[in-house]
Amino acid sequence: MPIYECLTTRGTLTDAQRGSFVESVTRIHCEETGAPKDFVHVLFPELEPGHLYSAGSRARTSIIRALVRAGRPPKVRQAIIQRLWDAYLALTGADVMSVVVAVIDVPASWVMEGGMILPEPNAADEAAWMAKVGRSGEAKA
Amino acid sequence: MPIYECLTTRGTLTDAQRGSFVESVTRIHCEETGAPKDFVHVLFPELEPGHLYSAGSRARTSIIRALVRAGRPPKVRQAIIQRLWDAYLALTGADVMSVVVAVIDVPASWVMEGGMILPEPNAADEAAWMAKVGRSGEAKA
Amino acid sequence: MPIYECLTTRGTLTDAQRGSFVESVTRIHCEETGAPKDFVHVLFPELEPGHLYSAGSRARTSIIRALVRAGRPPKVRQAIIQRLWDAYLALTGADVMSVVVAVIDVPASWVMEGGMILPEPNAADEAAWMAKVGRSGEAKA
Repeated sequence: MPIYECLTTRGTLTDAQRGSFVESVTRIHCEETGAPKDFVHVLFPELEPGHLYSAGSRARTSIIRALVRAGRPPKVRQAIIQRLWDAYLALTGADVMSVVVAVIDVPASWVMEGGMILPEPNAADEAAWMAKVGRSGEAKA
Repeated sequence: MPIYECLTTRGTLTDAQRGSFVESVTRIHCEETGAPKDFVHVLFPELEPGHLYSAGSRARTSIIRALVRAGRPPKVRQAIIQRLWDAYLALTGADVMSVVVAVIDVPASWVMEGGMILPEPNAADEAAWMAKVGRSGEAKA
Repeated sequence: MPIYECLTTRGTLTDAQRGSFVESVTRIHCEETGAPKDFVHVLFPELEPGHLYSAGSRARTSIIRALVRAGRPPKVRQAIIQRLWDAYLALTGADVMSVVVAVIDVPASWVMEGGMILPEPNAADEAAWMAKVGRSGEAKA
Protein backbone atom coordinates (compact mmCIF):
# COMPACT_ATOMS: atom_id res chain seq x y z
CA MET A 1 0.00 0.00 0.00
CA PRO A 2 -0.82 2.48 -1.19
CA ILE A 3 -2.30 1.02 -4.36
CA TYR A 4 -3.07 3.59 -7.04
CA GLU A 5 -5.09 2.27 -9.95
CA CYS A 6 -5.43 4.41 -13.06
CA LEU A 7 -8.14 2.76 -15.12
CA THR A 8 -8.50 3.85 -18.73
CA THR A 9 -9.69 2.58 -22.07
CA ARG A 10 -6.92 0.92 -24.10
CA GLY A 11 -5.13 3.53 -26.18
CA THR A 12 -5.82 6.43 -23.84
CA LEU A 13 -2.34 6.66 -22.34
CA THR A 14 1.08 6.17 -23.89
CA ASP A 15 3.92 4.37 -22.18
CA ALA A 16 5.60 7.71 -21.59
CA GLN A 17 2.46 9.15 -20.00
CA ARG A 18 2.18 6.17 -17.69
CA GLY A 19 5.80 6.60 -16.65
CA SER A 20 5.33 10.31 -16.00
CA PHE A 21 2.16 9.76 -14.03
CA VAL A 22 3.89 7.18 -11.87
CA GLU A 23 6.55 9.76 -11.02
CA SER A 24 3.86 12.25 -10.05
CA VAL A 25 1.82 9.78 -8.01
CA THR A 26 4.83 8.46 -6.14
CA ARG A 27 6.15 11.94 -5.38
CA ILE A 28 2.73 13.29 -4.34
CA HIS A 29 2.02 10.35 -2.07
CA CYS A 30 5.40 10.50 -0.34
CA GLU A 31 5.40 14.27 0.05
CA GLU A 32 1.90 14.39 1.48
CA THR A 33 2.14 11.40 3.79
CA GLY A 34 5.83 11.15 4.65
CA ALA A 35 5.69 7.44 3.76
CA PRO A 36 8.66 5.82 2.00
CA LYS A 37 8.26 5.24 -1.71
CA ASP A 38 9.13 1.53 -1.46
CA PHE A 39 5.53 0.43 -1.11
CA VAL A 40 3.81 2.79 -3.54
CA HIS A 41 2.21 0.69 -6.26
CA VAL A 42 0.73 2.22 -9.40
CA LEU A 43 -1.34 0.09 -11.76
CA PHE A 44 -2.80 0.77 -15.17
CA PRO A 45 -5.64 -1.65 -15.90
CA GLU A 46 -7.23 -1.15 -19.29
CA LEU A 47 -10.73 -1.59 -20.61
CA GLU A 48 -11.51 -2.64 -24.16
CA PRO A 49 -12.62 0.30 -26.33
CA GLY A 50 -16.37 0.72 -25.90
CA HIS A 51 -16.47 -0.88 -22.45
CA LEU A 52 -16.98 2.31 -20.47
CA TYR A 53 -20.05 4.53 -20.41
CA SER A 54 -20.59 7.84 -18.65
CA ALA A 55 -23.99 9.56 -18.47
CA GLY A 56 -25.40 6.67 -20.52
CA SER A 57 -23.06 7.11 -23.49
CA ARG A 58 -19.74 5.63 -24.50
CA ALA A 59 -16.90 7.66 -23.06
CA ARG A 60 -13.19 7.53 -22.31
CA THR A 61 -13.40 8.56 -18.68
CA SER A 62 -10.24 7.96 -16.65
CA ILE A 63 -10.79 6.57 -13.16
CA ILE A 64 -7.99 6.99 -10.64
CA ARG A 65 -8.76 4.96 -7.57
CA ALA A 66 -6.42 4.60 -4.62
CA LEU A 67 -6.40 2.40 -1.54
CA VAL A 68 -4.43 4.08 1.25
CA ARG A 69 -3.98 3.34 4.93
CA ALA A 70 -6.72 4.79 7.13
CA GLY A 71 -5.84 7.20 9.92
CA ARG A 72 -4.38 10.27 8.27
CA PRO A 73 -5.90 13.75 8.65
CA PRO A 74 -8.54 14.71 6.04
CA LYS A 75 -6.31 17.50 4.69
CA VAL A 76 -3.73 14.90 3.62
CA ARG A 77 -6.33 13.11 1.52
CA GLN A 78 -7.61 16.37 0.08
CA ALA A 79 -4.09 17.38 -0.93
CA ILE A 80 -3.43 14.02 -2.56
CA ILE A 81 -6.71 14.14 -4.48
CA GLN A 82 -6.17 17.70 -5.72
CA ARG A 83 -2.59 17.10 -6.76
CA LEU A 84 -3.41 13.81 -8.53
CA TRP A 85 -6.15 15.64 -10.37
CA ASP A 86 -3.91 18.51 -11.42
CA ALA A 87 -1.07 16.17 -12.45
CA TYR A 88 -3.33 13.95 -14.55
CA LEU A 89 -4.99 16.82 -16.39
CA ALA A 90 -1.68 18.58 -17.00
CA LEU A 91 -0.15 15.37 -18.32
CA THR A 92 -2.96 14.17 -20.53
CA GLY A 93 -4.97 17.25 -21.42
CA ALA A 94 -8.05 15.27 -20.38
CA ASP A 95 -11.33 17.15 -20.21
CA VAL A 96 -12.33 18.26 -16.72
CA MET A 97 -15.53 16.22 -17.05
CA SER A 98 -13.79 12.96 -17.97
CA VAL A 99 -11.75 12.22 -14.87
CA VAL A 100 -12.64 10.73 -11.48
CA VAL A 101 -10.24 10.57 -8.54
CA ALA A 102 -11.13 8.56 -5.43
CA VAL A 103 -8.84 7.96 -2.45
CA ILE A 104 -10.25 5.22 -0.23
CA ASP A 105 -9.16 4.25 3.29
CA VAL A 106 -8.25 0.71 4.27
CA PRO A 107 -7.19 -0.02 7.87
CA ALA A 108 -3.48 -0.87 8.04
CA SER A 109 -4.26 -4.07 9.95
CA TRP A 110 -6.15 -5.43 6.93
CA VAL A 111 -3.03 -5.49 4.74
CA MET A 112 0.23 -7.47 4.60
CA GLU A 113 3.37 -6.50 2.73
CA GLY A 114 6.94 -7.68 3.13
CA GLY A 115 5.51 -10.58 5.12
CA MET A 116 4.09 -8.39 7.89
CA ILE A 117 0.83 -6.64 8.69
CA LEU A 118 1.25 -2.94 7.84
CA PRO A 119 1.99 -0.39 10.57
CA GLU A 120 -0.35 2.45 11.43
CA PRO A 121 0.46 5.56 9.37
CA ASN A 122 2.80 7.36 11.75
CA ALA A 123 6.56 7.76 11.71
CA ALA A 124 7.34 5.70 14.81
CA ASP A 125 5.31 2.63 13.83
CA GLU A 126 6.59 2.86 10.26
CA ALA A 127 10.24 3.01 11.31
CA ALA A 128 9.85 -0.02 13.58
CA TRP A 129 8.09 -1.87 10.79
CA MET A 130 10.67 -1.02 8.14
CA ALA A 131 13.45 -2.25 10.41
CA LYS A 132 11.69 -5.59 10.87
CA VAL A 133 10.89 -5.97 7.17
CA GLY A 134 14.52 -5.26 6.35
CA ARG A 135 15.62 -8.10 8.60
CA SER A 136 12.86 -10.35 7.34
CA GLY A 137 13.83 -9.58 3.72
CA GLU A 138 17.43 -10.50 4.46
CA ALA A 139 16.41 -13.63 6.32
CA LYS A 140 14.34 -14.87 3.40
CA ALA A 141 16.69 -13.68 0.63
CA MET B 1 -19.44 8.54 -8.96
CA PRO B 2 -21.24 6.32 -8.89
CA ILE B 3 -18.93 3.78 -10.53
CA TYR B 4 -20.67 0.57 -11.57
CA GLU B 5 -18.32 -2.21 -12.61
CA CYS B 6 -19.76 -5.25 -14.34
CA LEU B 7 -16.97 -7.81 -14.35
CA THR B 8 -17.38 -10.84 -16.59
CA THR B 9 -15.34 -13.37 -18.51
CA ARG B 10 -14.61 -12.30 -22.09
CA GLY B 11 -17.41 -13.44 -24.36
CA THR B 12 -20.11 -13.39 -21.68
CA LEU B 13 -21.83 -10.19 -22.82
CA THR B 14 -22.47 -8.80 -26.27
CA ASP B 15 -22.10 -5.14 -27.16
CA ALA B 16 -25.86 -4.86 -27.28
CA GLN B 17 -26.21 -6.39 -23.80
CA ARG B 18 -23.66 -3.97 -22.41
CA GLY B 19 -25.54 -1.06 -23.91
CA SER B 20 -28.85 -2.28 -22.54
CA PHE B 21 -27.41 -2.86 -19.10
CA VAL B 22 -25.97 0.65 -19.07
CA GLU B 23 -29.44 2.02 -19.75
CA SER B 24 -30.83 0.00 -16.86
CA VAL B 25 -28.06 0.89 -14.43
CA THR B 26 -28.22 4.58 -15.23
CA ARG B 27 -32.01 4.69 -14.95
CA ILE B 28 -32.07 2.67 -11.73
CA HIS B 29 -29.40 4.76 -10.07
CA CYS B 30 -31.04 8.06 -10.97
CA GLU B 31 -34.55 6.95 -10.06
CA GLU B 32 -33.53 5.57 -6.69
CA THR B 33 -31.16 8.36 -5.65
CA GLY B 34 -32.41 11.43 -7.47
CA ALA B 35 -28.85 12.07 -8.65
CA PRO B 36 -28.27 13.44 -12.16
CA LYS B 37 -27.11 10.95 -14.73
CA ASP B 38 -24.08 13.01 -15.73
CA PHE B 39 -21.75 11.28 -13.31
CA VAL B 40 -22.97 7.70 -13.60
CA HIS B 41 -20.10 5.59 -14.91
CA VAL B 42 -20.55 1.99 -16.02
CA LEU B 43 -17.51 -0.15 -16.77
CA PHE B 44 -17.15 -3.63 -18.22
CA PRO B 45 -13.76 -5.11 -17.30
CA GLU B 46 -13.19 -8.57 -18.69
CA LEU B 47 -11.31 -11.59 -17.45
CA GLU B 48 -9.61 -14.07 -19.74
CA PRO B 49 -11.60 -17.31 -20.11
CA GLY B 50 -10.63 -19.63 -17.29
CA HIS B 51 -9.56 -16.83 -14.95
CA LEU B 52 -12.55 -17.01 -12.60
CA TYR B 53 -13.43 -19.79 -10.19
CA SER B 54 -16.49 -20.16 -7.97
CA ALA B 55 -16.79 -22.89 -5.33
CA GLY B 56 -13.36 -24.13 -6.42
CA SER B 57 -14.27 -24.73 -10.07
CA ARG B 58 -14.04 -22.68 -13.23
CA ALA B 59 -17.15 -20.60 -13.67
CA ARG B 60 -18.53 -17.62 -15.56
CA THR B 61 -19.86 -15.73 -12.57
CA SER B 62 -20.74 -12.08 -13.24
CA ILE B 63 -19.71 -9.64 -10.54
CA ILE B 64 -21.48 -6.29 -10.43
CA ARG B 65 -19.71 -4.02 -7.99
CA ALA B 66 -20.64 -0.40 -7.42
CA LEU B 67 -19.02 2.44 -5.53
CA VAL B 68 -21.65 4.98 -4.46
CA ARG B 69 -21.62 7.97 -2.17
CA ALA B 70 -22.18 7.10 1.48
CA GLY B 71 -25.08 8.68 3.36
CA ARG B 72 -28.24 7.43 1.72
CA PRO B 73 -30.90 5.42 3.57
CA PRO B 74 -30.46 1.62 3.53
CA LYS B 75 -33.66 1.19 1.56
CA VAL B 76 -32.14 3.10 -1.36
CA ARG B 77 -29.24 0.66 -1.51
CA GLN B 78 -31.57 -2.31 -1.20
CA ALA B 79 -33.68 -1.04 -4.07
CA ILE B 80 -30.64 -0.48 -6.26
CA ILE B 81 -29.27 -3.95 -5.52
CA GLN B 82 -32.58 -5.69 -6.20
CA ARG B 83 -33.26 -3.81 -9.41
CA LEU B 84 -29.71 -4.34 -10.73
CA TRP B 85 -30.12 -8.01 -9.98
CA ASP B 86 -33.45 -8.26 -11.74
CA ALA B 87 -32.24 -6.25 -14.74
CA TYR B 88 -29.11 -8.31 -15.20
CA LEU B 89 -30.88 -11.65 -14.99
CA ALA B 90 -33.66 -10.52 -17.30
CA LEU B 91 -31.13 -9.22 -19.83
CA THR B 92 -28.68 -12.12 -19.83
CA GLY B 93 -30.64 -15.12 -18.64
CA ALA B 94 -27.79 -15.74 -16.19
CA ASP B 95 -28.31 -18.47 -13.63
CA VAL B 96 -29.39 -17.21 -10.19
CA MET B 97 -26.27 -18.82 -8.70
CA SER B 98 -23.82 -17.10 -11.05
CA VAL B 99 -24.32 -13.43 -10.23
CA VAL B 100 -23.03 -11.23 -7.39
CA VAL B 101 -24.17 -7.65 -6.81
CA ALA B 102 -22.37 -5.46 -4.28
CA VAL B 103 -23.09 -1.76 -3.66
CA ILE B 104 -20.32 -0.24 -1.57
CA ASP B 105 -20.27 3.16 0.16
CA VAL B 106 -17.50 5.70 -0.30
CA PRO B 107 -17.68 9.03 1.54
CA ALA B 108 -18.33 11.90 -0.89
CA SER B 109 -15.33 13.79 0.50
CA TRP B 110 -13.00 11.05 -0.73
CA VAL B 111 -13.84 11.67 -4.41
CA MET B 112 -13.24 14.42 -6.96
CA GLU B 113 -15.08 14.92 -10.23
CA GLY B 114 -15.38 17.95 -12.47
CA GLY B 115 -12.44 19.36 -10.54
CA MET B 116 -14.28 19.47 -7.21
CA ILE B 117 -14.75 17.24 -4.19
CA LEU B 118 -18.20 15.61 -4.47
CA PRO B 119 -21.15 16.99 -2.53
CA GLU B 120 -22.98 15.00 0.12
CA PRO B 121 -25.88 13.05 -1.41
CA ASN B 122 -28.71 15.52 -0.88
CA ALA B 123 -30.48 17.81 -3.31
CA ALA B 124 -29.28 21.13 -1.86
CA ASP B 125 -25.58 20.24 -1.78
CA GLU B 126 -25.82 18.64 -5.20
CA ALA B 127 -27.46 21.68 -6.79
CA ALA B 128 -24.83 24.01 -5.38
CA TRP B 129 -22.09 21.68 -6.58
CA MET B 130 -23.53 21.32 -10.08
CA ALA B 131 -23.73 25.09 -10.43
CA LYS B 132 -20.07 25.45 -9.51
CA VAL B 133 -18.95 22.60 -11.76
CA GLY B 134 -20.83 24.18 -14.65
CA ARG B 135 -18.91 27.42 -14.15
CA SER B 136 -15.65 25.57 -13.65
CA GLY B 137 -16.25 23.55 -16.82
CA GLU B 138 -16.85 26.75 -18.80
CA ALA B 139 -13.82 28.41 -17.30
CA LYS B 140 -11.54 25.58 -18.31
CA ALA B 141 -13.15 24.85 -21.68
CA MET C 1 -18.79 -13.24 -1.45
CA PRO C 2 -16.08 -13.58 -0.62
CA ILE C 3 -14.41 -12.23 -3.74
CA TYR C 4 -10.67 -12.92 -3.91
CA GLU C 5 -8.88 -11.05 -6.69
CA CYS C 6 -5.32 -12.04 -7.54
CA LEU C 7 -4.03 -9.28 -9.80
CA THR C 8 -0.82 -9.95 -11.70
CA THR C 9 0.98 -8.96 -14.85
CA ARG C 10 0.18 -11.23 -17.80
CA GLY C 11 2.55 -14.17 -17.85
CA THR C 12 3.19 -14.20 -14.10
CA LEU C 13 1.05 -17.22 -13.28
CA THR C 14 0.46 -20.43 -15.17
CA ASP C 15 -2.92 -22.11 -15.46
CA ALA C 16 -1.74 -24.77 -13.03
CA GLN C 17 -0.65 -22.14 -10.50
CA ARG C 18 -4.01 -20.41 -10.73
CA GLY C 19 -5.78 -23.70 -10.14
CA SER C 20 -3.59 -24.51 -7.15
CA PHE C 21 -4.03 -21.07 -5.65
CA VAL C 22 -7.80 -21.37 -5.98
CA GLU C 23 -7.67 -24.60 -3.99
CA SER C 24 -5.64 -22.87 -1.28
CA VAL C 25 -7.82 -19.76 -1.15
CA THR C 26 -11.04 -21.75 -1.02
CA ARG C 27 -9.76 -24.09 1.68
CA ILE C 28 -8.26 -21.26 3.76
CA HIS C 29 -11.40 -19.15 3.59
CA CYS C 30 -13.71 -22.03 4.54
CA GLU C 31 -11.49 -23.34 7.34
CA GLU C 32 -11.03 -19.92 8.92
CA THR C 33 -14.59 -18.66 8.59
CA GLY C 34 -16.70 -21.81 8.59
CA ALA C 35 -18.50 -20.49 5.51
CA PRO C 36 -19.53 -22.93 2.78
CA LYS C 37 -17.33 -22.97 -0.32
CA ASP C 38 -20.26 -22.39 -2.69
CA PHE C 39 -19.86 -18.62 -2.71
CA VAL C 40 -16.07 -18.34 -2.71
CA HIS C 41 -15.08 -16.55 -5.92
CA VAL C 42 -11.45 -16.29 -7.04
CA LEU C 43 -10.55 -14.00 -9.94
CA PHE C 44 -7.31 -13.50 -11.83
CA PRO C 45 -7.35 -10.12 -13.61
CA GLU C 46 -4.21 -9.40 -15.60
CA LEU C 47 -2.32 -6.25 -16.41
CA GLU C 48 -0.38 -5.75 -19.63
CA PRO C 49 3.36 -6.15 -19.13
CA GLY C 50 4.79 -2.80 -18.08
CA HIS C 51 1.50 -1.57 -16.58
CA LEU C 52 2.51 -1.90 -12.93
CA TYR C 53 5.09 0.11 -11.04
CA SER C 54 6.31 -0.29 -7.47
CA ALA C 55 8.62 2.24 -5.78
CA GLY C 56 8.58 4.23 -9.02
CA SER C 57 9.93 1.43 -11.22
CA ARG C 58 8.36 -1.25 -13.36
CA ALA C 59 7.67 -4.34 -11.31
CA ARG C 60 5.70 -7.57 -11.32
CA THR C 61 4.09 -7.14 -7.92
CA SER C 62 1.17 -9.48 -7.23
CA ILE C 63 -1.80 -7.91 -5.50
CA ILE C 64 -4.23 -10.21 -3.71
CA ARG C 65 -7.26 -8.25 -2.68
CA ALA C 66 -10.32 -9.77 -1.03
CA LEU C 67 -13.78 -8.49 -0.22
CA VAL C 68 -15.24 -10.43 2.71
CA ARG C 69 -18.29 -9.95 4.88
CA ALA C 70 -17.74 -7.60 7.80
CA GLY C 71 -18.32 -8.82 11.35
CA ARG C 72 -15.78 -11.54 11.98
CA PRO C 73 -13.16 -11.34 14.76
CA PRO C 74 -9.83 -9.71 13.80
CA LYS C 75 -7.97 -12.97 14.36
CA VAL C 76 -9.94 -14.58 11.53
CA ARG C 77 -8.79 -11.89 9.13
CA GLN C 78 -5.21 -12.14 10.37
CA ALA C 79 -5.21 -15.90 9.86
CA ILE C 80 -6.61 -15.56 6.34
CA ILE C 81 -4.03 -12.92 5.41
CA GLN C 82 -1.10 -14.91 6.78
CA ARG C 83 -2.17 -18.16 5.18
CA LEU C 84 -2.86 -16.52 1.80
CA TRP C 85 0.57 -14.96 1.99
CA ASP C 86 2.29 -18.23 2.82
CA ALA C 87 0.37 -20.15 0.16
CA TYR C 88 1.11 -17.64 -2.58
CA LEU C 89 4.83 -17.46 -1.83
CA ALA C 90 5.14 -21.23 -1.53
CA LEU C 91 3.31 -21.71 -4.83
CA THR C 92 5.04 -19.06 -6.92
CA GLY C 93 8.38 -18.48 -5.26
CA ALA C 94 7.58 -14.76 -5.43
CA ASP C 95 9.95 -12.41 -3.64
CA VAL C 96 8.78 -11.30 -0.19
CA MET C 97 8.86 -7.68 -1.39
CA SER C 98 6.66 -8.26 -4.43
CA VAL C 99 3.37 -9.37 -2.89
CA VAL C 100 0.51 -7.42 -1.27
CA VAL C 101 -2.41 -9.09 0.50
CA ALA C 102 -5.43 -7.02 1.57
CA VAL C 103 -8.62 -8.41 3.09
CA ILE C 104 -11.33 -5.76 3.10
CA ASP C 105 -14.68 -5.80 4.91
CA VAL C 106 -17.99 -5.21 3.18
CA PRO C 107 -21.21 -5.31 5.22
CA ALA C 108 -23.28 -8.37 4.34
CA SER C 109 -26.33 -6.17 3.72
CA TRP C 110 -24.56 -4.47 0.82
CA VAL C 111 -24.34 -7.68 -1.22
CA MET C 112 -26.77 -9.98 -3.05
CA GLU C 113 -26.10 -13.52 -4.18
CA GLY C 114 -28.49 -16.29 -5.13
CA GLY C 115 -31.15 -13.58 -5.38
CA MET C 116 -30.99 -12.64 -1.70
CA ILE C 117 -29.13 -10.14 0.46
CA LEU C 118 -26.30 -12.01 2.23
CA PRO C 119 -26.70 -13.16 5.83
CA GLU C 120 -24.51 -11.87 8.64
CA PRO C 121 -21.43 -14.09 9.09
CA ASN C 122 -22.69 -16.49 11.74
CA ALA C 123 -23.82 -20.08 11.49
CA ALA C 124 -27.50 -19.51 12.32
CA ASP C 125 -28.08 -16.72 9.81
CA GLU C 126 -26.10 -18.57 7.18
CA ALA C 127 -28.06 -21.79 7.60
CA ALA C 128 -31.38 -19.97 7.31
CA TRP C 129 -30.11 -18.14 4.24
CA MET C 130 -28.81 -21.28 2.54
CA ALA C 131 -32.15 -23.00 3.06
CA LYS C 132 -33.95 -20.09 1.38
CA VAL C 133 -31.48 -19.83 -1.48
CA GLY C 134 -31.87 -23.55 -2.13
CA ARG C 135 -35.63 -23.13 -2.46
CA SER C 136 -35.21 -19.99 -4.54
CA GLY C 137 -32.74 -21.76 -6.84
CA GLU C 138 -35.22 -24.58 -7.38
CA ALA C 139 -38.08 -22.19 -7.95
CA LYS C 140 -36.20 -20.30 -10.66
CA ALA C 141 -34.47 -23.31 -12.24
